[in-house]
Amino acid sequence: MFDLKFELIKKDPGSSARLGSLTTTHGKIETPIFMPVGTQATVKAMTPEELVQAGSQIILANTYHLYLRPGHELVGRLGGLHGFMHWDRPILTDSGGFQVFSLGELRKISEEGVKFRSHIDGSRHFLSPELSIAIQQSLGADIAMCFDECPPYPAEVSYVQKSLELTTRWARRCKEAHTRTDQALFGIVQGGMHPELRRESAERLIEIGFDGYALGGLSVGEEKGLMHEMFHACAPYVPEHFPRYIMGIGAPEDLIEAVNAGYDMFDCVMPTRNARNGALFTSFGRINIKAACFEEDTGPVDPECDCYVCRNYSRAYLRHLYRSQEILASRLNTWHNLHYYLNLMRQVRDSIAAGTFSAFRKEFYAQRGGAGSVVSER
Amino acid sequence: MFDLKFELIKKDPGSSARLGSLTTTHGKIETPIFMPVGTQATVKAMTPEELVQAGSQIILANTYHLYLRPGHELVGRLGGLHGFMHWDRPILTDSGGFQVFSLGELRKISEEGVKFRSHIDGSRHFLSPELSIAIQQSLGADIAMCFDECPPYPAEVSYVQKSLELTTRWARRCKEAHTRTDQALFGIVQGGMHPELRRESAERLIEIGFDGYALGGLSVGEEKGLMHEMFHACAPYVPEHFPRYIMGIGAPEDLIEAVNAGYDMFDCVMPTRNARNGALFTSFGRINIKAACFEEDTGPVDPECDCYVCRNYSRAYLRHLYRSQEILASRLNTWHNLHYYLNLMRQVRDSIAAGTFSAFRKEFYAQRGGAGSVVSER
Ligand SMILES: [Zn+2]
Ligand SMILES: [Zn+2]
Repeated sequence: MFDLKFELIKKDPGSSARLGSLTTTHGKIETPIFMPVGTQATVKAMTPEELVQAGSQIILANTYHLYLRPGHELVGRLGGLHGFMHWDRPILTDSGGFQVFSLGELRKISEEGVKFRSHIDGSRHFLSPELSIAIQQSLGADIAMCFDECPPYPAEVSYVQKSLELTTRWARRCKEAHTRTDQALFGIVQGGMHPELRRESAERLIEIGFDGYALGGLSVGEEKGLMHEMFHACAPYVPEHFPRYIMGIGAPEDLIEAVNAGYDMFDCVMPTRNARNGALFTSFGRINIKAACFEEDTGPVDPECDCYVCRNYSRAYLRHLYRSQEILASRLNTWHNLHYYLNLMRQVRDSIAAGTFSAFRKEFYAQRGGAGSVVSER
Repeated sequence: MFDLKFELIKKDPGSSARLGSLTTTHGKIETPIFMPVGTQATVKAMTPEELVQAGSQIILANTYHLYLRPGHELVGRLGGLHGFMHWDRPILTDSGGFQVFSLGELRKISEEGVKFRSHIDGSRHFLSPELSIAIQQSLGADIAMCFDECPPYPAEVSYVQKSLELTTRWARRCKEAHTRTDQALFGIVQGGMHPELRRESAERLIEIGFDGYALGGLSVGEEKGLMHEMFHACAPYVPEHFPRYIMGIGAPEDLIEAVNAGYDMFDCVMPTRNARNGALFTSFGRINIKAACFEEDTGPVDPECDCYVCRNYSRAYLRHLYRSQEILASRLNTWHNLHYYLNLMRQVRDSIAAGTFSAFRKEFYAQRGGAGSVVSER
């Protein structure tokens, strides 16, 4: 296994937030960090250069999608994902687990793995822990993830218990199958909304031994308050000298709460997907650019944002592009939203370094509740 | 009227090609030049900065589309198209004539103007020479075009004759309605595939007096050979001290033939629209990136191209993006195609400056007939 170096730089005095640094084969990442999602070997609508300009240190790519198209062996023969997509910074690949379980009727789980049908052409496939690792090794990510089962929510506690046992056996098989010495491997803690099961899952994974640990199976339909409670309950189950990652979250306030609880890494399609639907994140809350009130608005999306979009385009123009279904709408909206997320994490890191994270968190909520909240979606 | 300065810098000894320079309110343009089409106040999939990087000196925007959405008065109130779309170089707007005539059943022509229904929502509108000029003045283009009727092809000669007379009366009304002193106004020569009618149209427009003259109504279904003959037949009808513009063409070979015949300005959706369909222009002919032969092709789109795309991405990756319907596919394909067109015009200008345009033209055809033509669409 790769000797992933995670350095804990500073712990916040008023919370469980922490500043860290993670050294991967393709360079160092400052944590806490948000990872933009590049499902099909591209972060939708962005070039790699723009991702760097927006502040991306690491991106995530999807094993399930790349296995189906163009195929991991092809990517491997062409030298791996980094060269293929023209991105020379770190990459994390998920295991495909969450995607195949999301297929519902199209998949069937057994001890050996998961039978499923492709969402593209209906063709039959079988994904196992061993194949997931083989795919991720071909793709050449800096950080690979164990193949896990993500139980539905809500679910019987007995099902969740059985599921985490399967996830544990699969995690052992993943570790055995994993041979690349330039790639880290993370375990995924399951256990639904039951802290005692989460603790059991974490302990068994730590016994096996991984480079870092992720919480999977959150943001699956539970109340936000419950999700945030789970953040706090589960963080101590992973010793502090390991990087802690929460998969698939979230809204800006979820990231703030997760950092507050002691997590380091996050990914979510929210900034990119919302952007393509015209929903933009700002320092005063969320707006939708298609709203009539922006028709003649010559101001930037967010007066406090210094991204390329806010420096050069008006809300009126962005509204026109969105209504005209122009590709540039997706581009500019994505650029701004990613900048918002990445800049938020930069501010989070700065505040932890300055020992002022709690004040930053308070100010974050104060701004969003303030008079500036022009058009809230909620 | 604006005092548009067109300077004839050099005439090619072996052809009618000429090198020129056109000074507009937003700067100087070197001719011959290709103008990327920015229909809805954006050249699809590109930022203004990328357009400049690809070599764009001037772009075209569509009066018909911008009148319907977001509305020319809105754009005018916001300070005109340049500020609205964040483009500070020259802009040419068409008159809306070609678009409303393309609506077929949805429009009705009279002496006064054209009644039509919006392609967006079916709402009723009336476009006249006076309104077309008012729209173009609100948009604030550097070069406005007269509102013309574009006869169908084929058409009875008597219809074409009547049509050009209407176009002439409309051109007079356009000139009378035009008041902006920082905007040039071009006349549009009609007359179908009849050189004698084209001559009559040109003479009447020159009597009225415009800053430049365009050929309209070409590339409407006629044979390529006939179109190229029309280029040669009609060029002398516009005195050489005026800029000559052919609207809506064309393929790279059409541009070469038009330059050869003595024209200076061109626009066409071909590089941008083809790009979104995966069709890419190269020094050895056209390829379609979705072809199976590119599956593992690690080479650039065009080994002779030094654009951002060819320097950083493989055909294999571009094929993957196209098949995955990624926005980045449209972006990169458009970037390469525009670079191809704009670089072709740069080479054309260089060869005229060097007195070697005829040799350049020969070489252009030799390369495309050569062994390099991997996948021709024709
Ligand atoms: Zn911004
Ligand atoms: Zn290129």
